[in-house]
Amino acid sequence: MATAPLTTKPTPERMFNTLNAFQTTAALKTAIEMDLFTAISEGADQPATLAKRIGAAERGARILADYLTVHGFLTKEDGVYALTPDSAFFLDRKSPAYLGSMIGFLATDRHKQTFEHLTEAVRKGGSVLPEADNTKAQDEVWVSFAKSMAPITAPSAAFMAQFAGMSEQKPCKILDVAASHGMFGITFAKQNPNARIVALDWPAVLEVAKENARAAGVADRISFLPGSVFEADLGADYDFVLLTNILHHFDKSTIGKLLSRIHAALKPSGRVITLEFVPNEDRISPPTAAAFSLIMLTGTDAGDAYTFAEYDAMFRNAGFGKSTLHQVPTGPQQLVVSEKS
Amino acid sequence: MATAPLTTKPTPERMFNTLNAFQTTAALKTAIEMDLFTAISEGADQPATLAKRIGAAERGARILADYLTVHGFLTKEDGVYALTPDSAFFLDRKSPAYLGSMIGFLATDRHKQTFEHLTEAVRKGGSVLPEADNTKAQDEVWVSFAKSMAPITAPSAAFMAQFAGMSEQKPCKILDVAASHGMFGITFAKQNPNARIVALDWPAVLEVAKENARAAGVADRISFLPGSVFEADLGADYDFVLLTNILHHFDKSTIGKLLSRIHAALKPSGRVITLEFVPNEDRISPPTAAAFSLIMLTGTDAGDAYTFAEYDAMFRNAGFGKSTLHQVPTGPQQLVVSEKS
Repeated sequence: MATAPLTTKPTPERMFNTLNAFQTTAALKTAIEMDLFTAISEGADQPATLAKRIGAAERGARILADYLTVHGFLTKEDGVYALTPDSAFFLDRKSPAYLGSMIGFLATDRHKQTFEHLTEAVRKGGSVLPEADNTKAQDEVWVSFAKSMAPITAPSAAFMAQFAGMSEQKPCKILDVAASHGMFGITFAKQNPNARIVALDWPAVLEVAKENARAAGVADRISFLPGSVFEADLGADYDFVLLTNILHHFDKSTIGKLLSRIHAALKPSGRVITLEFVPNEDRISPPTAAAFSLIMLTGTDAGDAYTFAEYDAMFRNAGFGKSTLHQVPTGPQQLVVSEKS
Repeated sequence: MATAPLTTKPTPERMFNTLNAFQTTAALKTAIEMDLFTAISEGADQPATLAKRIGAAERGARILADYLTVHGFLTKEDGVYALTPDSAFFLDRKSPAYLGSMIGFLATDRHKQTFEHLTEAVRKGGSVLPEADNTKAQDEVWVSFAKSMAPITAPSAAFMAQFAGMSEQKPCKILDVAASHGMFGITFAKQNPNARIVALDWPAVLEVAKENARAAGVADRISFLPGSVFEADLGADYDFVLLTNILHHFDKSTIGKLLSRIHAALKPSGRVITLEFVPNEDRISPPTAAAFSLIMLTGTDAGDAYTFAEYDAMFRNAGFGKSTLHQVPTGPQQLVVSEKS
């Protein structure tokens, strides 16, 4: 039997695998499209039965399932595939935590084309795309995002609402900035029947949030504010402002303007909860937060995955007290919590 | 400081990272294109100096280098980047083992487009490309391969020549099938001044091999046989036939025809040395060999990463004795050695 090499000599395997890494994206996307994980969970767990179930050739089903096993999405014992715990939780369509809709935003042609221009982006120091200025409405991108990415927010939204004490059910007023699918505000509203939410986003995007709010039965406590956080009349006296995955799109000066407007809209001692990819000071850990920076290089004019020290400084400059950093236990993101002083 | 989550709850991080994995391919390709590794090895090891040296914006250089650090190609200490041992060996242009030319074949637009059709290939059980029949000449693809992939063959070619006893310098006659860049035959000829090589490939591809043979000073002992292994007059009385990365393109029946022709061309007790991606019987290990199968699904009509048992059976059916399997110590591939009985 062949075995992995035991040598410690240099090996080109990492280079080879990285130049082939785009294939893992394609394989997972195809598996989700074909609902392979659901099929296996329902017993179509060998190449012949799996092929029949997902409408594939047996060779195709076998090679794809083996590949997904190599990459940790399946297990295989005596020729029988099974889901890993993560795959069962996130990739079986019957799971309440199903995340397959993510392929409507991640790994789309648009994203991949962005990375076709990475060399130019590194030279320029920013995106070479015409639509990289995220202070302008980009309906196509952000409607896709709103429709695709709601499920992945559920654990962090639940953690944030709990963190903000929503279970105490005190009356409060919350501004959900760049609300997208609306799931952050909706989760706060569900945990706290006395919470009132203002959801801010571009008009086309808010249609997705409205639909989700109605489905969640909280539409009567959410008002919808169409427009830009840089220009809209945000209202006042908020207890909380939610800044979820918005600040990374901008440079520090633009973030400063945004935070000043937020500061003005909060009541005294009101808090901002920022959900972000926050790398450590070394900018190389934790891996997912640190790696996120490259997406900002290719997709924005001057955005970044900022460190906690950078966020803390930006918030202080805008009039907030010292911020605190909190790991979201279920995912790769972090919370920065900042109080109006 | 933020730290990685300590929870063992399900996490979507693998899915998220896999849907983003195409970005690691782009990052490595860009770094090679910009010669970032050579720059760092020569002391341009911080964002500002690195940016200047590779013609990048500082933001671009910093984000790309951090990303490459996250993915194990660089180290970073106190803001200073350095090459890992593998990167110094394979990605510094001054290294004799430099492999950067691989981006002329791996991760090219053609390869990436192939994977755009993965779902269709899984349905069909084979490539949906018109040029997937590898019994026909595909000059554009295989000339690119020959020009790009020679360096990665050096360690396995050296191991194969040593394995075949070339250092004993006995007179022998070797057929190098699908010779491509010619580096396998050339390496045998360099180790053994009494070896004579016949290099077989399509005419346009052989031009690359001829150039390499001249540069290596062994052109006088290599003859060039243009054509198809399925049709050409292969000659006779070979001591060795080299089948390097060719069999995986075909189905078992086609391989059978090929091996019968090879069997006829060998002298009694002559040996075939096959260099291949040979997964274990489980088809999910070793990872690189097992994962290779997906490339054959998208790029060929019916090729595969065959197991050793499958190769052994195919060789026996063609008249060979029992084959043996050997791990190439420096890389992800294996040798199957088969003797004419």
